[in-house]
Amino acid sequence: MKNKKVVLDRYPEALPVADVMSVQEEEARVPGDGEIQVAVDYLSIDAWIGTTLSPGWLHTLIPEGATVPALGVGKVLASGSLDFQEGDAVFGPFAAQTVATVPAEGCSVVDTSIAGLSDYLGLLSVTTGLTALFGIRDIGQVKEGDTVVVSAAAGAVGSVAGQMARALGAGKVIGIAGGPEKCAFLTDELGFDAAIDYKSEDVEQRVGELAPEGVSVFFDNVGGEMLDAVLEHIQERARVVICGAISQYADNNDVYGPKRYLRLAERYARMEGYTAFHFADRYAEGMKDIAAWMGEGKLKMREQVEEGIESFPRALEMLFTGGNTGKLLVHTGS
Amino acid sequence: MKNKKVVLDRYPEALPVADVMSVQEEEARVPGDGEIQVAVDYLSIDAWIGTTLSPGWLHTLIPEGATVPALGVGKVLASGSLDFQEGDAVFGPFAAQTVATVPAEGCSVVDTSIAGLSDYLGLLSVTTGLTALFGIRDIGQVKEGDTVVVSAAAGAVGSVAGQMARALGAGKVIGIAGGPEKCAFLTDELGFDAAIDYKSEDVEQRVGELAPEGVSVFFDNVGGEMLDAVLEHIQERARVVICGAISQYADNNDVYGPKRYLRLAERYARMEGYTAFHFADRYAEGMKDIAAWMGEGKLKMREQVEEGIESFPRALEMLFTGGNTGKLLVHTGS
Repeated sequence: MKNKKVVLDRYPEALPVADVMSVQEEEARVPGDGEIQVAVDYLSIDAWIGTTLSPGWLHTLIPEGATVPALGVGKVLASGSLDFQEGDAVFGPFAAQTVATVPAEGCSVVDTSIAGLSDYLGLLSVTTGLTALFGIRDIGQVKEGDTVVVSAAAGAVGSVAGQMARALGAGKVIGIAGGPEKCAFLTDELGFDAAIDYKSEDVEQRVGELAPEGVSVFFDNVGGEMLDAVLEHIQERARVVICGAISQYADNNDVYGPKRYLRLAERYARMEGYTAFHFADRYAEGMKDIAAWMGEGKLKMREQVEEGIESFPRALEMLFTGGNTGKLLVHTGS
Repeated sequence: MKNKKVVLDRYPEALPVADVMSVQEEEARVPGDGEIQVAVDYLSIDAWIGTTLSPGWLHTLIPEGATVPALGVGKVLASGSLDFQEGDAVFGPFAAQTVATVPAEGCSVVDTSIAGLSDYLGLLSVTTGLTALFGIRDIGQVKEGDTVVVSAAAGAVGSVAGQMARALGAGKVIGIAGGPEKCAFLTDELGFDAAIDYKSEDVEQRVGELAPEGVSVFFDNVGGEMLDAVLEHIQERARVVICGAISQYADNNDVYGPKRYLRLAERYARMEGYTAFHFADRYAEGMKDIAAWMGEGKLKMREQVEEGIESFPRALEMLFTGGNTGKLLVHTGS
């Protein structure tokens, strides 16, 4: 059996661009003791992948020539582990390839009777649904009547964070996104109260107009001047949740620091960061909470599916240039 | 009776410099109904005064020609209020002058049997002792064994914050100050475990050497690159307390934003700001706590006293150029 994998040919100069990666074919490896072989169905395109390709970030840099890491879902083809059987639907760090032979530890069987297979890369995944949950609920502490602003709001994490804010009782949910289509998606499909198109509008001015009462919680995935624009409007006791900074991943040594950070002192406010991994002991509990909201129809996830393993490099580039709406997936077609 | 007052002749270009102020003499005004006339003894030199002289900051800009605001202590000369009697020792917003006639509301009688008169501008004042207390205890949440770093540590607020951290059980207290004399003051007189001289040492490197376990709490009064240097070394769940940013008050429109703020996300850490005024309903309780520590000999305050109202402009300039150690006071000699 053949495996097609996406390898890193050379480090990108800044953001990950498609042409630093290429697809190679090899013989799929038979699983050894404690390993499973998986026919990968969907791969999750996440921002953290980009940080494994450029020096200085949170994640360890992968070597040139290595397969690009990614989380995926698929079906077990062969198992060298007692915990997995042929045909099981599984989630795991399969990397960007069509047939993955990986340690069974770190993978998990998923229940496709309660949610679709790809939901385990979206609403029910650590990097999307759980990231949004811990950020908006535990760090942001959204409560009844709060005014919540979400950046990168048409992205996977942002779109869920905004819906969760509403489910937690927020009085007003405002999303910031790029372009009229994404903005319409937020207000028309997801029930956001308002959307700001950062490509054509002055974010600082618009936040002031839409939230004259000030911002209680800002869930930020963008950083840079957008963070400053919202900091200008935070309320007293506001919570600014630093989930990510997609605008700043190009160069870790030249990050734009928020010039308005002294608003925190003026307004007895807080900026707190996290990754979902810091809540690792609460994944199971969090997935239950998300599943309950899904059952009540409170959470929608739009999926943008790119076809074929060959589309992986372009999909990753797209994530950093704002080309996607909702959860970006690669369907390997294996 | 004559009053000598310090007036603002023109706005400074950046930081307050002595020559934008001058001393004028006038007849002291007899107090009207609800007012008191006070012979001002000591004036407190605080950073917030600078922000009333330059546009765009927390405090309202004072008009040119106005008396420069300041907190002071003194004795009541004449009272138009039933709450105050001639001879009472009082604290209040007397402004930079020798004889103040001000509304009685906003002033308070102080008990000089439990602390010296000038302590009410230092350890027991809102802008110094209470600022340190609420910052290090309530925002910083210093607990047993924490590693605490304080910037502007030889200043009034910083020197108290460090001692309070120790009183709260911190395992290691490190101060950052300018020059060998201030550093010796911290370690030899105040019992800090170590001091870093930012004028001759690489702060980022030294914090790493002195606190290889990482920093649990950073109490920051400086901002700028010093904030970044310490952010690089924060522990998981660290609390970065934004009390002030004396390095950044020159130009509100060109504040240095902390480029390392993404360490907050990597380490599930928090940056929180405040002013003592946000804790206004807890002043009495806080003063009791501070008085208790004073009684146990756990808090020392060095006072640097400049003689004469004429020294006020120079003293204010000095605060922004790092010329003082401990609490900077002007003794009006009235």
